[in-house]
Formats: sequence, C-alpha cells, structure tokens
Amino acid sequence: MNDGREPLYIKVYEKYKSQIVSAKLTSGTKLPSIRRACAELGVSKTTVEAAYLQLEAEGYIKSRPQSGFYVAQIDYSDVGSKRAHVKSEKTSKTKIEFDFISAAVDAKSFDFDLWRRYVRSALKADSRLLSYGEPQGEADLRAALCDYVNFRRGVICSPDQIVVGAGIQSLLQILCSTDKKSGRVLFAGKLFLQGAAVFNAFGRETQAIEYKDMETLCLGDVDYVYTNPSHINPWGDILPVSQRLELLKLARERNFIIIEDDYNSEFQYINRPVQSLQGLGSGENVLYIGTFSKLLLPSLRIAFMVLPDSLLKGYQKDGLIFNQTASKAEQIALCQYLRDGNLSRQIRKSRKLYAAKCRALCDRINEYGRGIVLAVMGTSGIFFRVEVNRDISGKELAEAAMQKGVAVRALDDKNGKAQLLLSCSSIPSDSIEQAAKRVAEVLCLPF
Amino acid sequence: MNDGREPLYIKVYEKYKSQIVSAKLTSGTKLPSIRRACAELGVSKTTVEAAYLQLEAEGYIKSRPQSGFYVAQIDYSDVGSKRAHVKSEKTSKTKIEFDFISAAVDAKSFDFDLWRRYVRSALKADSRLLSYGEPQGEADLRAALCDYVNFRRGVICSPDQIVVGAGIQSLLQILCSTDKKSGRVLFAGKLFLQGAAVFNAFGRETQAIEYKDMETLCLGDVDYVYTNPSHINPWGDILPVSQRLELLKLARERNFIIIEDDYNSEFQYINRPVQSLQGLGSGENVLYIGTFSKLLLPSLRIAFMVLPDSLLKGYQKDGLIFNQTASKAEQIALCQYLRDGNLSRQIRKSRKLYAAKCRALCDRINEYGRGIVLAVMGTSGIFFRVEVNRDISGKELAEAAMQKGVAVRALDDKNGKAQLLLSCSSIPSDSIEQAAKRVAEVLCLPF
Repeated sequence: MNDGREPLYIKVYEKYKSQIVSAKLTSGTKLPSIRRACAELGVSKTTVEAAYLQLEAEGYIKSRPQSGFYVAQIDYSDVGSKRAHVKSEKTSKTKIEFDFISAAVDAKSFDFDLWRRYVRSALKADSRLLSYGEPQGEADLRAALCDYVNFRRGVICSPDQIVVGAGIQSLLQILCSTDKKSGRVLFAGKLFLQGAAVFNAFGRETQAIEYKDMETLCLGDVDYVYTNPSHINPWGDILPVSQRLELLKLARERNFIIIEDDYNSEFQYINRPVQSLQGLGSGENVLYIGTFSKLLLPSLRIAFMVLPDSLLKGYQKDGLIFNQTASKAEQIALCQYLRDGNLSRQIRKSRKLYAAKCRALCDRINEYGRGIVLAVMGTSGIFFRVEVNRDISGKELAEAAMQKGVAVRALDDKNGKAQLLLSCSSIPSDSIEQAAKRVAEVLCLPF
Repeated sequence: MNDGREPLYIKVYEKYKSQIVSAKLTSGTKLPSIRRACAELGVSKTTVEAAYLQLEAEGYIKSRPQSGFYVAQIDYSDVGSKRAHVKSEKTSKTKIEFDFISAAVDAKSFDFDLWRRYVRSALKADSRLLSYGEPQGEADLRAALCDYVNFRRGVICSPDQIVVGAGIQSLLQILCSTDKKSGRVLFAGKLFLQGAAVFNAFGRETQAIEYKDMETLCLGDVDYVYTNPSHINPWGDILPVSQRLELLKLARERNFIIIEDDYNSEFQYINRPVQSLQGLGSGENVLYIGTFSKLLLPSLRIAFMVLPDSLLKGYQKDGLIFNQTASKAEQIALCQYLRDGNLSRQIRKSRKLYAAKCRALCDRINEYGRGIVLAVMGTSGIFFRVEVNRDISGKELAEAAMQKGVAVRALDDKNGKAQLLLSCSSIPSDSIEQAAKRVAEVLCLPF
C-alpha cells in the first residue's frame, strides 16, 4: 500500500477521511475494528491506530468505550471548494540608468561590516532572545537613546519617557490607542501621508497647513500639529528659531501637542544641527520622534518617541498591553552601536558623502544646462532642486527624462515653472559627471 | 527590581501578598490593572500576570470579569496560626525550585547556532537592506509562507493574500485600518487581551463568548469571531471538526469573518496537526493568522495573516500605505530557513521534547501520587493538567506547593475538585524525576 513517500498511517487516514467526507461512510457507521482493518489493508496495528487517533483528533470519528470507532455527525453542506492559485508577481520593465528618485541609502556610506558585527554579537544573547521583550522597548536601548538625543539634539527626557517601535506608524498607532483624544491633527507644510493614514484610521481628521497660517488656522479642536522642523520643504530647509519659538508659544496657549518628526535632522549640512523643538520648549508640549531608517538602514525598523508628561500617563495606563514591534536582536545591536559612538561617526561620514555628491551634481548640472537650468542645494538631506526656465510643465519634463533612462520627480512651482526634486543617494560618486550631463541634456532638449 | 536570584514574578507576588496579609490592602480593594502594575514596577506584563495568577490561585485576590483583580475576603480569625505562618514565610522568602508556571521557550529546544547562520547570511544581502521593504512583506518570504501553510496547515492561498507584520497586534491594526467595518468582535472561549485592546482602540466593542453559545449569541452586528481552534482550553484541546464546520456555516449565514489565530497548532502531539479552519472552509470567511514567536523565538517579531478575498480588496486599496514593521534582515533569514525545511525540523524537535517532558512528568506524578492524583496530557502545547482527588481547594494546594518551592497554577474545576495546570517548559529534562516527586508529595501531604 505504501509508495514510500508518505507515512503509511496518513494513507489509511486519507482513505477513511475521503469516505466520510464523500458520505460513503455516513454518520453513526461503525468503522472496522483495528484488527480487521489491519487484515484488510495489510498494515500493522500501530498504523491503523495512528490513523484512527488522527481521525478522532480531528473529530471525524468518535470512539465508544468497549465498542469501537464510529463516524461522527458532520454537516458539510455549506462548504464549497476552491483550489489554490498562485498569481505571479507584477514586474514593471522600465530601464532606469540614473535614478534621482530613490531615497535609498548610498551603499558606500554605510559600514556594513561594522553593523554586522554588532548584530552577530546581539544574536549571542541567547537567554534574552528566548523571552519576550519589554513592551516599551529594551531598557538598555532606551537609556542609550536618551543619552544620544540629549547630547545630539538637546532633547530633555528620561528613559521611561521613551517608547520604541518598528517605525513611526507603529508609534502613532500606540499614541492614538492611548491618548483618548479625538480632535484634529494638522500637518505643518505638507501632509505626511503615512502619518495621516494612521490618524484617519482612528477616525481623526487631518489637514495640511502652512507654517505662516498656523496662528490664524490652528484654532478649535486641534490636538496635534505634526512638524518636520529640520526639513520644512522638499530640499531640506529648516524652521528658523523665531518660528520655532512662536510655534511653542502657540502650543502652550492653545493647548495642543507638537509632534516633532526629527527624521532628517542629523543630515543638516551646517556644522551643528539646530536644537530640537522639544529641547527648546524644555520638554513641554512636544512629542519628539526619531528614527534609524535614514540614519542607518531603511530596512532597520526601529523608531522611538519621547512622550511629554501629559501623554506619558495615558501610555503607562493603557499602552503596555501593546507588545513591542521592533526586533529584540536589532534593539540589542543598536544599543551597543550607540554606546560605542558609532552612530555619530556614521552620520558624519554620510553627511560628508551626501553633501559632496549634491554639490558636485549641482555644479555640473548648472555648467551643462547654463542659462536654462538652475540647480540649488538645500541645507540638509539628500535632495536638491532644479529650476527649469522653460515654457514646459514638470510632468512633461519628467516623462521626457524617463524616456532617456533618467528617473526624476517633478514638483509644482507656484509660478508655473517646471521644478524637479532630485535625490543624490542612488547616483554613484563615480557617475556624477555622466548623470549630470544626461539631466542637463534632457532639460535642454527641443520639445 | 530583580537581583537575578529568583523569578521576578515571585517578587511582585510577595509585594502584594505582604500588603494584603498586613491589611494595608483590605478586602474589596482593587489592585492596579496589570498594565499599571507593569508601569509602576517596571516589569513585563507576563511577570505581573504570573504574580496575579499566583495570588488568585492562593485565594488572596479574585478576578472579576471585565473589571479587574480585587483583594479577597480573608478571615484570619479561624486560622491564626495560618496567618502567622504566612507572615514568617514572607520573611523567609520562598525559593522556587521547580517553576511549573513559566511558558518561556526551553533553551534546549532551539538550535541557536543554526538560526544565527541564517541571520548572518541575510545580513550579507547589502543591497536589499539598503532599501525600504515591501509594505506587505518581502515577496520571497510571502511565497515561502504560502507554501509552508499550504503544506503544513492546508491553508488555501496565494502569496498576494499574505500580509507580514511585527506581531499579531500590528496585523490587527492594519485590518482595523482597512476594513471599514465597525461591528462587534467576539472572542471564542476567552478574551485575548492584546487582541481586544487593538479592536477597542479602534472603537470596536469586544466580548468573550463560549463556543457552545455561538449560535444563540452571535447575532446582529458581529464582524469578527476571534478563535484559537487548535487550542481551545488551557491544556490545549482542539476544536473538533463538527464544531469547526458549524462555525464555518454560521460565518457564511451571518456574514462574519472568523479570525483563526493558529499560533499553537504545530505543537499538537498527535502525529499530524488538524487542518486549519481556513483550509476546511476553502479559504472563505476565514482570516488566518500565524506567528513565529512560539514556533521559533519569542523575540522574533514576525507574524503573518492570510486575507480572504472579501478583505483583500480593502487592503490593496488602503493598506499599502502602512509600512512593513518586521525587520527585513529577519524576513530574509526566515525565508531561507523555511525553504531549507528547518522550521519543520525545529518543530518536530520541540514537539518531541515537550511531549516527552509532559509524558514523563505525568507518568511520574501518577506513580508517586497513586490513587490521589491524576495527571493528564492535553493534545497540544506545553501544558498538562493534574486532577487531585482530595477534599481541598486548588488555592490551598497552590499555596502548599509554593511553601515547598514549587510554583503551580490552580484552575477552577466545576465539580469543586482541585485542578492544577502545569507547564513543562521550564523543568529541565534531567530534573523531571525530582520535580514530579515533589509535586506528588505536596499534593499527598496531610492538610
């Protein structure tokens, strides 16, 4: 009976199961005794026993003491049938030679071997990895984060105010689950779509608003104002201190919380990044958020938030039921990486690399597209913008570029001029000359 | 809080017990919620839960459904000696020699070196790690998961129905954010607190309901019925097929979705785990959830759900804005680990170890406690139950056990008989003889 590929008892099990499912054996029918089944099927007693136990465990048959096995009462009438089908993944086939859209990290900027050493070392913490993590994040990591943001960003906090999670959305979900608020959430400058999606999912209204309109429009039932004070426009300008102080004053007066999403702060090209809003406001009325997706690796899902006292109570009451989402091994690795000062070193290196690439690209594009194109660097980040002095829309330019193997992102310019936002991160340092030339060529093409 | 010498939960237990015994906490006083106690004491949820369960087992506190834990009415006048004894015990500090409460993974069951090799290898995928992951989960992991659940659990699906996330709560948050429903969520058997917290945060009503009452009580605006069909009671019995089919029929008739949380399925001691509800229902009306916290490592934050067609559209429309929460490196490692067949091997090994430990413990306890004690294995998991044929309550037994250095959990038996629920996972294989003997001795003591 056996072809050697599957345990024998499974065959016996399948045989009876199919007879029961197809109603050849109806409810209440007695199955052959184990001895008889052995004889009929030419298999051993243990095989039949295993099959019967399996059928019984799944509820197809029932055993009656001193009597035998009987088919159970089962109603199949409502269960349809459906076969597994595997759809192939969609693949788009556009050949991109120069990718100015990607915000992926430049492979050259990241010391992978070093990071791998830390993860390898974290993976040796057997006993820590065999248990669940702290809901709030590993205590040693929170202490290291606290030191780091205090030193680098002037954030005022203690480790118990820090909540770790697998990305900003996970943190906002915890916030929405514990703060018991229901008012509006304003996004300063531009709607951060992934953030707004979380608030919307919890039934909260979201709205984008310009910094300059804040005082007149930020009225009524506003709970949060979401900001990126280190990156207030696509090319990475920062919010000046005067406006920072105004915003903090407004938050105090109107009783809302500023969410300070500081994801890009460390890439400011100026020598010393502006202090965080949180620190400037002495830790009040500001919820500070940091993430390691940009600072280290996009694939590393670790972010953290620093809760102000007014929100900490709600978290301590209702938040600890939400399990930690970030990998424990990666938390342990990051903690030691921070303690050893590697993050600061890594950031200095990345910042230098990105600044050099942006500068070189801008210079070359301005040279090749002289008179028609103007490339301008911001004060932070990996992006720069290109103004195009031609009577053509950004969308048309982006399409033309794509046909020439150059992926670019077009922006809306209020004066109707085409404007592109370009990222330097995926352009290798040794292809800058070619990439800049290609961009300039596309932008100066006759249309 | 921990000096590393005894389980943390014992310290929490001692703290509250001494307050109750010394009447600082008087009868009827509500204890802090588990969440608040976690925050106040700086310990994990499982620690506080274990402490509260111990206090409850010993009768110091009582749980009131939907409300919390309250100090019980304890009359010390009759048992002056007992009170004195409790006090002296408090000062002498009970040392736990055998911990039958902990559900942590047995360190011996997990091949750490093997897993480390896979993570190390995944960390070499530099280019993949430098970019953000797929919101839905890495495509190759989803394909591997699809094959795995199809082969092992009879789940019918394609990779595009699978959504990966950092734990069940992350997946439920995505579900709540994309399904546009607002009806009630029933939990079959017992409220899964972490799951209910997510639904509650999204404004949904949750309620626990017995399987037998499903037909009469599952009426009206019910969107989901949350189930653990592979683990319907503490000692891990499974839902028989007849009841599975009834539930599927009810879901079809009343238009609700069954959430099948299959976390424990693979540890069924019978030779082949029962097919999933999802597969039995041909993939309709069931949302299947699997997780690797129990199968591999609690610290590994990777779970996945298989969306039925009716929910897939909503996810594809509104769900892709939610970034992936699981670590990409760990996703890559898990994918290859699955492809190489290691998970099946690991599960076989764990199951064998746990089954052997449970069986040996049951056999020895039955031998040493002959006539008075009956230890019975369930059909899955790491727990077994012990019935005690004596005129004594579970709480008294639990307390007596604690005095002899044995931590056990007492259950309510409907017939007023004492019943204990014991976990084998923290009992080392080479201490089974001693541990069983000690349990039997305690249960047979003169009281």
